[in-house]
Amino acid sequence: MKKFYLITPGPTPIPPEVAAQSALPIIHHRTHEFGDLFDQVSQGLKYVYQTKNDVFIITASGSGAMESAVANVVNPGDKVIVASGGSFGERWIKINTAFGATVVAVKDELGQPVNVEKIREALKANPDAKAVFCQHTETSTGVVNDLKALGEIVAATPALLVVDAISGLGGEELHMDDWKLDVVVAGSQKGLMVAPGLAFASVSDKAWKVIEACKNHRFYFDYRLIKKSIPNKETPWTPAVTLMQSLRASLGMIKSDGIENVWARHRRLAKATRAGMQGLGLKLFATNPCAVLTSAYLPSSVDGNKLVDWMRDDLGVSVAGGQESLKGKIVRLAHMGYMDQFDILVGLTALETGLKKFGVAVPPGKGVQAAMEAFAAV
Amino acid sequence: MKKFYLITPGPTPIPPEVAAQSALPIIHHRTHEFGDLFDQVSQGLKYVYQTKNDVFIITASGSGAMESAVANVVNPGDKVIVASGGSFGERWIKINTAFGATVVAVKDELGQPVNVEKIREALKANPDAKAVFCQHTETSTGVVNDLKALGEIVAATPALLVVDAISGLGGEELHMDDWKLDVVVAGSQKGLMVAPGLAFASVSDKAWKVIEACKNHRFYFDYRLIKKSIPNKETPWTPAVTLMQSLRASLGMIKSDGIENVWARHRRLAKATRAGMQGLGLKLFATNPCAVLTSAYLPSSVDGNKLVDWMRDDLGVSVAGGQESLKGKIVRLAHMGYMDQFDILVGLTALETGLKKFGVAVPPGKGVQAAMEAFAAV
Repeated sequence: MKKFYLITPGPTPIPPEVAAQSALPIIHHRTHEFGDLFDQVSQGLKYVYQTKNDVFIITASGSGAMESAVANVVNPGDKVIVASGGSFGERWIKINTAFGATVVAVKDELGQPVNVEKIREALKANPDAKAVFCQHTETSTGVVNDLKALGEIVAATPALLVVDAISGLGGEELHMDDWKLDVVVAGSQKGLMVAPGLAFASVSDKAWKVIEACKNHRFYFDYRLIKKSIPNKETPWTPAVTLMQSLRASLGMIKSDGIENVWARHRRLAKATRAGMQGLGLKLFATNPCAVLTSAYLPSSVDGNKLVDWMRDDLGVSVAGGQESLKGKIVRLAHMGYMDQFDILVGLTALETGLKKFGVAVPPGKGVQAAMEAFAAV
Repeated sequence: MKKFYLITPGPTPIPPEVAAQSALPIIHHRTHEFGDLFDQVSQGLKYVYQTKNDVFIITASGSGAMESAVANVVNPGDKVIVASGGSFGERWIKINTAFGATVVAVKDELGQPVNVEKIREALKANPDAKAVFCQHTETSTGVVNDLKALGEIVAATPALLVVDAISGLGGEELHMDDWKLDVVVAGSQKGLMVAPGLAFASVSDKAWKVIEACKNHRFYFDYRLIKKSIPNKETPWTPAVTLMQSLRASLGMIKSDGIENVWARHRRLAKATRAGMQGLGLKLFATNPCAVLTSAYLPSSVDGNKLVDWMRDDLGVSVAGGQESLKGKIVRLAHMGYMDQFDILVGLTALETGLKKFGVAVPPGKGVQAAMEAFAAV
């Protein structure tokens, strides 16, 4: 017997009552029943996005949703600004480059949020920029960006603000409309507590004009076709129906808790996780840490890849290590979606056990003690 | 209490033991466990495709897989030949047009298979054609095309043969390698008996050279990125893991039955369905009917849309009507995937009940009688 714990930033644990929905007999996607499902999911997504706009439902990974934003906005040869502070910022650069855009990359040090002033300057220096691309939370480093400030700056220009909220949506505070975000993409397997396979995009009125004028080749991800299907309560292509059945259930849970309470729960988990990791003697990595993921440096004596593998294979506890240049150097504990305080304590004690295994002297229970103090304080 | 019967060409019924796999706790897609899942699914897909080539696993609807074939093969301005005999042939035209190709459309009358001689002539008249696009089975009409003959003709030219086997794979006989097919795309929700959300593509060596040289913008659907991930037993983007868990189970069922027996079962169901529909006094629609779907004209006095709606809403039996110019005029019973002889009898008796409701005099049980005779004969 071995129990498994998923403390990773996507996939995230799926509530049993949500998972069970995916095992029910499938319904046909051109029926009244599907229309009801489509309606309920659409309403729930608007609520989580905090938007009055339609939220497009796409059958794809999050990366497909990212591509959809580029494919609908950027013509080959267009100039775009990408604010990149990690692997997912780099993904915006790769997709824009693949689609023939001229990319002005505004890079921040790993672990630092997007520098809002540098974006203001980049927009001044590049008044012809079609869009600014950024992350809500950069999953590879655990940083949250100041979308409200970025929204203000970009709204004053003709450019669009395109946000990857894949790891943030449903955990980290987000107000699409109030913050003047133009395109926001997300995925099902993070804060929305569903298996991967569904992706989402919502667009502002300002963005819609750009999308309608965009001449880029597109079909599967064409927002114009997706929007045309909405009055019929359907998607243009056969959607991942069983995942939508699950999503209806998880969106119901979020609505019933209230999105502000969901954000507050994530903040509380984040605060305790940070305290716990510091209690273990680790130095936090992100200077502007998000509510959905906590990252910390590992002692240089520890090979983080081996640590993460050992924790998964021997303890049954999956956490995330570092990616690319951070490979082996940091550890990341997710608290995204279907997570409560006990999951945090599992993560911290597993990390304590792992550190000890790899030769780091950790006083027993120090991480949990610090986390419990933090929980008591909020 | 109401029971529901899905006798439609996608989604198709999902075996309970397959559906249950999607409700199990999700596994992380960057682990050994996922590597095993990836391996098992890949082997099973190669078997169903009857190919030695890799089969790419894509998180998308079947239309996404169709787009992937165009995106990886066709440069803007390239000339392509599309053999179209229904809605899905038209989809090849739309996607190619959206991607800037010059389309030579070789259209066949609805209900007729692709005219192999017309394709030979089109290739002679257009020696610069990059590819010929066609369907394995055209779901909108119930026709199966002679892929073996098309494969011979196209193989003798520099063009590629690109096949949409979305509704055919896993039901209708297919030998990708022996029949010299260059790109074959498919989806999870038809003969493979899984919910929608996964799509597949396999490419020949001849096609791979074209794909590597193709300059078209692509990222999410880029076969080069997908192929590069295969040695790591993973997909470049987070895949629909729970659907892959289900797919492993359904591919296991197909392997255990033997693909030749699966094809034979579909042929037997098709033969009985055709006999049953004729027993009901209906005239068959397709001149070269496929093994996965049977289509028939409705009496002109019957509004097919109303008939199909009534059968679904009152009897709980979902069958398909006609699409576009065939709307209201034909009825389609699917026998695709998880279907046995009793499903056929449900479909035929429901259709008999519906016809009677809409004023057609049908001798009770005539359809089933004819079907039972056909079952007895094979």
